[in-house]
Amino acid sequence: MERYGKITEEIYKELLSVTGPGGVIMNDAEVLDNYAWDQAGRIWGHMPEAVVKPADTAQVSAVMKIASREHIPVTPRGAGSGLNGGAVPLAGGVVLSLERMNRILEIDKVNRVAVVEPGVVTNDLCRAAAEEGFLYAGYPMSTETSFIGGNFATNAGGGKVIRYGNTRRHILGAEIVLPSGEIINLGGRFRKDTWGYNLLNLLAGSEGTLAVVTRLIVNLEPKPGRTVNLLACYPTVEELVESVAKVIGSGKRIISCEFMDKNLVKYTTEYLGCTLPEQERSEGYLLIQVEGDTEAQIEDGYETVGKICLGCGAFEVFVAESRTDSAAMWNVRQNGLEGMRARDPHACASGDLMVPLSAVPEMIRRIREISAEWKIEIGIISHIGDGNIHPIPLKPAEMPPERWAQHAEDFFAVLIREAIALGGVGSGEHGVGHVKQKVLMENKSPAELEVMQGIKRAFDPYNIMNPGKMFSPLA
Amino acid sequence: MERYGKITEEIYKELLSVTGPGGVIMNDAEVLDNYAWDQAGRIWGHMPEAVVKPADTAQVSAVMKIASREHIPVTPRGAGSGLNGGAVPLAGGVVLSLERMNRILEIDKVNRVAVVEPGVVTNDLCRAAAEEGFLYAGYPMSTETSFIGGNFATNAGGGKVIRYGNTRRHILGAEIVLPSGEIINLGGRFRKDTWGYNLLNLLAGSEGTLAVVTRLIVNLEPKPGRTVNLLACYPTVEELVESVAKVIGSGKRIISCEFMDKNLVKYTTEYLGCTLPEQERSEGYLLIQVEGDTEAQIEDGYETVGKICLGCGAFEVFVAESRTDSAAMWNVRQNGLEGMRARDPHACASGDLMVPLSAVPEMIRRIREISAEWKIEIGIISHIGDGNIHPIPLKPAEMPPERWAQHAEDFFAVLIREAIALGGVGSGEHGVGHVKQKVLMENKSPAELEVMQGIKRAFDPYNIMNPGKMFSPLA
Repeated sequence: MERYGKITEEIYKELLSVTGPGGVIMNDAEVLDNYAWDQAGRIWGHMPEAVVKPADTAQVSAVMKIASREHIPVTPRGAGSGLNGGAVPLAGGVVLSLERMNRILEIDKVNRVAVVEPGVVTNDLCRAAAEEGFLYAGYPMSTETSFIGGNFATNAGGGKVIRYGNTRRHILGAEIVLPSGEIINLGGRFRKDTWGYNLLNLLAGSEGTLAVVTRLIVNLEPKPGRTVNLLACYPTVEELVESVAKVIGSGKRIISCEFMDKNLVKYTTEYLGCTLPEQERSEGYLLIQVEGDTEAQIEDGYETVGKICLGCGAFEVFVAESRTDSAAMWNVRQNGLEGMRARDPHACASGDLMVPLSAVPEMIRRIREISAEWKIEIGIISHIGDGNIHPIPLKPAEMPPERWAQHAEDFFAVLIREAIALGGVGSGEHGVGHVKQKVLMENKSPAELEVMQGIKRAFDPYNIMNPGKMFSPLA
Repeated sequence: MERYGKITEEIYKELLSVTGPGGVIMNDAEVLDNYAWDQAGRIWGHMPEAVVKPADTAQVSAVMKIASREHIPVTPRGAGSGLNGGAVPLAGGVVLSLERMNRILEIDKVNRVAVVEPGVVTNDLCRAAAEEGFLYAGYPMSTETSFIGGNFATNAGGGKVIRYGNTRRHILGAEIVLPSGEIINLGGRFRKDTWGYNLLNLLAGSEGTLAVVTRLIVNLEPKPGRTVNLLACYPTVEELVESVAKVIGSGKRIISCEFMDKNLVKYTTEYLGCTLPEQERSEGYLLIQVEGDTEAQIEDGYETVGKICLGCGAFEVFVAESRTDSAAMWNVRQNGLEGMRARDPHACASGDLMVPLSAVPEMIRRIREISAEWKIEIGIISHIGDGNIHPIPLKPAEMPPERWAQHAEDFFAVLIREAIALGGVGSGEHGVGHVKQKVLMENKSPAELEVMQGIKRAFDPYNIMNPGKMFSPLA
């Protein structure tokens, strides 16, 4: 790591003169530690030298100019809610926290966009949009903590991707700061753009390895119709999985189709102090949301879906009769990771397998077989209607946490190879971060790696942006 | 152009040994001329040295290896229906025609995708999807001639973008051949992918300057509800334009919202030998398609939209009562360019301004003013609900065609600067090609150009892919 510059006293002062008092933190291990790890877990953390909190684009640009000149690594950070260590400053240097840039600048009703800074909490954007009669259609499970900038950086998915797509589709424009400090504006308040290579779509999901996002123009959808939630309980996972393609192919307006297995539900309901119906005999649940414009459409929707589930072997389908019912169902889904972590703080959230819908049964079967072979207890949670599966393994009790980090990575590497063999990829929405970087590199061809690294160089010739992530070496 | 290699007798034989008899055309000016220009018009054409027609991916790869070794320029070509000279071989060399790779390989009902070769005609894909109960949602106005590969290369838009997005959104995976001949697979039969930088989204709209597409995995939508078409006639363009944001913001399921001005309708109906209602007194028409699941929804849709139009000053709104009615309306819209060209074969189709919906009235006003100042007769056709406007200028009668090529480019350059000043860009769906390359380069910052050119180098270090387009110099 000699290649990178260090933050000297002089550079510290220079950074401070950019941000003003309170904008740079150094030599305070307790505070710095908060920026050393993300929701992948502490064992994947790494301490930064400094945290810098710019208040606006000009400050971001000035900081990047200094970092570029001095070859200091910069790791942009949103809420730190990522699940793969994407925001961990592996090479030390600066964590560039966007937390102070948290304003919703405008809701533009005619063009149906919001203009926001990257540090806006996703849910705040949802609420602001709703107040003006719109829907922000992104719905990552971390909606109450994650920042919209982080959603963009990871191309976050979540519970409504079947209907609305992932974050890439919701972002129409961005102001970005290149590693050199130059500011570029991409896209705009419109929905079509063939004016050059589409950098905006490339940046979505690039995990802070190419540029810093300082402003976003966000698509707003018309307010959706009414929705209803169904919870289907199955005696076997096989029967559950069989339903999924049929539900998705039903032609009804399916907004969500989520899977929770018995283990996950057990630990999560224990954690929340609640129960789901039929918990004793259910091996798994499907949580399905159906939309309709009229009462008749809604009824037709849930009756059709309910019949499919029962036909595939569900022994019960509950239709939420109130907002309270719905909230209770979704509460378990949203807290799945927390539930597993209450059972074991080292429960690993990086699993994010993506396969074609037709391969979901085989993928689930392989996950369960391989977990058994490895003697690893897992819970499974899944945006199963997308073919996106999150196995959450628990650390074997006797294994030291230091070893678990590597063991979990190895376990996921095996699963990822299975997903790829089934026509899938190793991440659908959580990204690569550094937990999965090695397996990413092993599973791309040399030709593809060369292109990816060429793109990285085009943006970041000195490799100062989030080194050690995606396709960038750790120097 | 000395930098590039020439196709010697030996290389010709080598290419022929790759494709087999009939796969390489050289020294036949009459045939080569068919591949020298696209729908931008003959005056923007340039002759290739040879046309190569590979039959499969292995042949494409072998051809690219030869071209790479010999530094021979390669310009991939679909149907040649592009409107900006994107498929014109500016540096000579090889036109790589994908016309023989025209098979629909599979309709995969469970994963709701089609797997196709790039030379499939868009409409053939639409029909094959419909036969299986699906919708291919791309709808470029050239649907009966354009290839799906060309749709991807230009990120084609068209008449249903408001509802379904442009081609990028419909493409889930691709097999591509790099300039080096290496084959890469991107994406797959799924709808989420954060497994590395998203090359698939970058390639959409890259106009054959980065790689050759040899296979596409295409998203299929469930069959849509019923639709109805409305034609609203306005005494002034100002009143028409006022309606648009209100129609789009109505919350009804608007599939299309298209504008045709008086001039365009006049020449197009003359060309087709038909009339539209109220043609004498209408300065412009809105053609609006509304979707609904039930008769009541449809009625509610067209009544709401109709009232908006009348409230803004339309003196008449016609609801198509039959498929014949609908076809008559859309026939004029689809033949707008042909109508203008029947009036003047040099009518220039490259205008593709993109502005926020809120800026549409001002943009239309400026187009009309500037055309008047330049004494250029225009027709305007527009996916106005997207903020995407196609002014089609006619060559002044006394101007020689050679001069018109430059004059039209200059005219568009002025309009594009206006669009950019209004928060827009210079192309929404037709792309840049070479007709607009100069103005593109002039209107991007040096920092952005550097990134764009770095991306080009990452794919194509010898600049053999479609030189002279987008950000690649002509050597």
